[in-house]
Amino acid sequence: MSTGPVQGMRDFLPVEVRRRHFLAERFRGVYERYGYDPIDTPALERLEVLLGSGGQDNEKLIFKVMRRGEALDRALASGGSEALAEEGLRFDLTVPLARYFAEHRAKLPKVFRRYHMGPVWRAERPARGRYREFWQCDVDVVGAAAPLGEIDVILATTDALAAVGFDGFSVRLNHRRLLAALLGALGVDKDLHASAVVAIDKLDKIGTDGVARELRERGIADEAVTRFERLDLAAARDVPAREGIEVLARMLVGLASEGGSIDAAEVESALGEMRQLVGALSAVRGDRLALALDPILARGMGYYTGAIFEVAAEGVPFALGGGGRYDGLIGRFQGQSVPAVGFSIGFERVLVVMSERAMFPQSLGALDVYVTVFAPDMLDDALRMADGLRTLGLRVVVPVDRGSLKHQLREANERGARFALVVGPNERDAGAVQIKTMASGQSVTVPRDQVGPRLVAEPDEGAEGAPPAVSE
Amino acid sequence: MSTGPVQGMRDFLPVEVRRRHFLAERFRGVYERYGYDPIDTPALERLEVLLGSGGQDNEKLIFKVMRRGEALDRALASGGSEALAEEGLRFDLTVPLARYFAEHRAKLPKVFRRYHMGPVWRAERPARGRYREFWQCDVDVVGAAAPLGEIDVILATTDALAAVGFDGFSVRLNHRRLLAALLGALGVDKDLHASAVVAIDKLDKIGTDGVARELRERGIADEAVTRFERLDLAAARDVPAREGIEVLARMLVGLASEGGSIDAAEVESALGEMRQLVGALSAVRGDRLALALDPILARGMGYYTGAIFEVAAEGVPFALGGGGRYDGLIGRFQGQSVPAVGFSIGFERVLVVMSERAMFPQSLGALDVYVTVFAPDMLDDALRMADGLRTLGLRVVVPVDRGSLKHQLREANERGARFALVVGPNERDAGAVQIKTMASGQSVTVPRDQVGPRLVAEPDEGAEGAPPAVSE
Repeated sequence: MSTGPVQGMRDFLPVEVRRRHFLAERFRGVYERYGYDPIDTPALERLEVLLGSGGQDNEKLIFKVMRRGEALDRALASGGSEALAEEGLRFDLTVPLARYFAEHRAKLPKVFRRYHMGPVWRAERPARGRYREFWQCDVDVVGAAAPLGEIDVILATTDALAAVGFDGFSVRLNHRRLLAALLGALGVDKDLHASAVVAIDKLDKIGTDGVARELRERGIADEAVTRFERLDLAAARDVPAREGIEVLARMLVGLASEGGSIDAAEVESALGEMRQLVGALSAVRGDRLALALDPILARGMGYYTGAIFEVAAEGVPFALGGGGRYDGLIGRFQGQSVPAVGFSIGFERVLVVMSERAMFPQSLGALDVYVTVFAPDMLDDALRMADGLRTLGLRVVVPVDRGSLKHQLREANERGARFALVVGPNERDAGAVQIKTMASGQSVTVPRDQVGPRLVAEPDEGAEGAPPAVSE
Repeated sequence: MSTGPVQGMRDFLPVEVRRRHFLAERFRGVYERYGYDPIDTPALERLEVLLGSGGQDNEKLIFKVMRRGEALDRALASGGSEALAEEGLRFDLTVPLARYFAEHRAKLPKVFRRYHMGPVWRAERPARGRYREFWQCDVDVVGAAAPLGEIDVILATTDALAAVGFDGFSVRLNHRRLLAALLGALGVDKDLHASAVVAIDKLDKIGTDGVARELRERGIADEAVTRFERLDLAAARDVPAREGIEVLARMLVGLASEGGSIDAAEVESALGEMRQLVGALSAVRGDRLALALDPILARGMGYYTGAIFEVAAEGVPFALGGGGRYDGLIGRFQGQSVPAVGFSIGFERVLVVMSERAMFPQSLGALDVYVTVFAPDMLDDALRMADGLRTLGLRVVVPVDRGSLKHQLREANERGARFALVVGPNERDAGAVQIKTMASGQSVTVPRDQVGPRLVAEPDEGAEGAPPAVSE
């Protein structure tokens, strides 16, 4: 029988679990400092909740849980009229948020800032870096006006990434209504907006000519494609956002004057939001946060309704997170529109980058002390010594199999312990303990009551990720 | 459409998530100090892994994940010869450990101390306090000799419970081989041991007469039942374990002399283990850990092979955790016996007890500061102030909807903020900030650069569960 995990899912070795936990705890710390509330929801949701308005696109993503017992028998006998499954594993944390918010609204603050980290499951074909079980890490503000909610989630998310060692942040911004206005002004038929966005999204990969070709293949009117080819997008994208916004504003006016269709009031309100958003972010973070407008940033998800954004960090050639405003989704169970904006960190992606760049504290989870047991009748003494050292917050192991001192020191080494303690008959008679520094192999013998203070005083530079002591 | 969670599963409100997290972090801190390594495994396992030797008993517990696409069509068309499901949600953390250990053995320490906290799923009928999704919290030592492994997991588990506020611990101990010896000596047929244990387990509820009646109903020989009725179990149960072991030893000798069957060498080795276990635990913890032998403690699970134990805390009328040695299970994927011993804390049960007894820090997750925005043009200033306070580790909210000061102070109150900061035109001109203490309603105006130090200095007694600051 195979002993591997199921296809597309992962077992995590201790070092990996500690890294995941380190990341989650740092993010959590920042979200808490921003006043976000944690929520949790079941792994399983009813299929009607999961499918919802999202429709059949999501259906093939879902791991469905089969009905049981008589219900299953009935469904099998029904020849397809009764479903074999009514529940499935969640594929994101946003659908559960919408259900949760509808269910618990009365018990939640009117403006609900929430964070949620946890696994989601997708029955996609596994590929390098794409798993069927992976973590998402979302912050959302429900009930927040634009652009105040946007400001909050962007500050919180960049702080969260800073808390794990990233810096040199840049945020690419766009606005769904500006994107729609641009497409409208180009003369792209409204029904073809989504299709056009798929092509335009490839600009950086296939260039203007490539995009133009694909736009034509997708049935976009020739006139619109020609206008697209003439656009000087770089003038808006490659400058600070503050300028980029004005470049885009002029671009839209220009296209309108050429006969493109444009809703001036709609555009002006979206531009106003972007100006405020950029103004506030600049005021708070200044040079520490680069902001750029990208008039063609789309971020696939059909549910965005306002600002959209992605965050990158210095030296990382892809976004570490993305988000935007989605005023339609949260209220769907209540049949009303509830303003909401969110920002997700690519938890798995961040882990990969941090592992590759050795950004985790080296000694995450490393053992401090291995207390050897010189002879069976000295076990109690070793256990007492270990107990005392643990109250000082040290990570201490006592051997759990009977082996020679040599065998024990081999385990101490294998476990990466910084120190081993040895109490032989001589030390016992003298009320002393031999402290062996594993890295150097050097030993020093000290009186028993000085062992704890001495080990605690010893510097351990990589230990910042150590779990907090009980007394904290 | 219903917006509740699926039947038998739970949504968690922020206060509940923080409590769960508080618990998990405290436990984790202790396990790390004992040198245990965290592991994680997928929610889904192959059914052949889940069912394994455990057989069909577990099958009805499992949420099975339906096959998809063509595989499902084929299975439906096969008329039952192909399974509709090949994977299911894990129902415990021990089966995944066995698979994990077999798969990753070469990368793990020879003696593998592991902890694992996480959700498991069981398709049982939901009831009060019984859920279909709940957390387990296990420590296990794989590759550990008896009783050294036992000592380690018992010390770690009682320390973990102490770290969340329990004390006055007592551990009830027994040994599977001693239980078998007792049943054998009573004259219970080996095939009926499991059945007899079910009856005897009810002793404290239904008394000796009740157990005797049920034993007879279960087909236990009259002679054995009579011997059981004459046993003075209290003499072994109601005394310190050190004495209880000797009482049991004499009891077994006595039964043997009456003609009961007994394997003296087997009994002596088990008694020896128990004496060592009790001796070491007493030596380390003394009066802080009460130990009792309970010759009829069985702990349902068929897989235990050696010592078994349960831990209770002062004033809690049921066990908070249980465990034992199970030398057969871990090696089953490798076709060999691998010694292992584990101790599980009843995570959900502990949560209930702690919530009922208000054992969680009162201010878990409470907001420190609400920075009001007096007028729209003062937003940037408020955001900057909040940013500065967060670097001090404070939990700070800035409003994300535009409302009057009164409206904002209402949110500050609703969110339980300790302080609200107000900068009106007067304060702005004077370079000052008004600090409003929400509990008393009193305000004090201080120079801007003194706000941070002043808020940090303010005592907040309940805040011990606050998440660590980034700088930690």
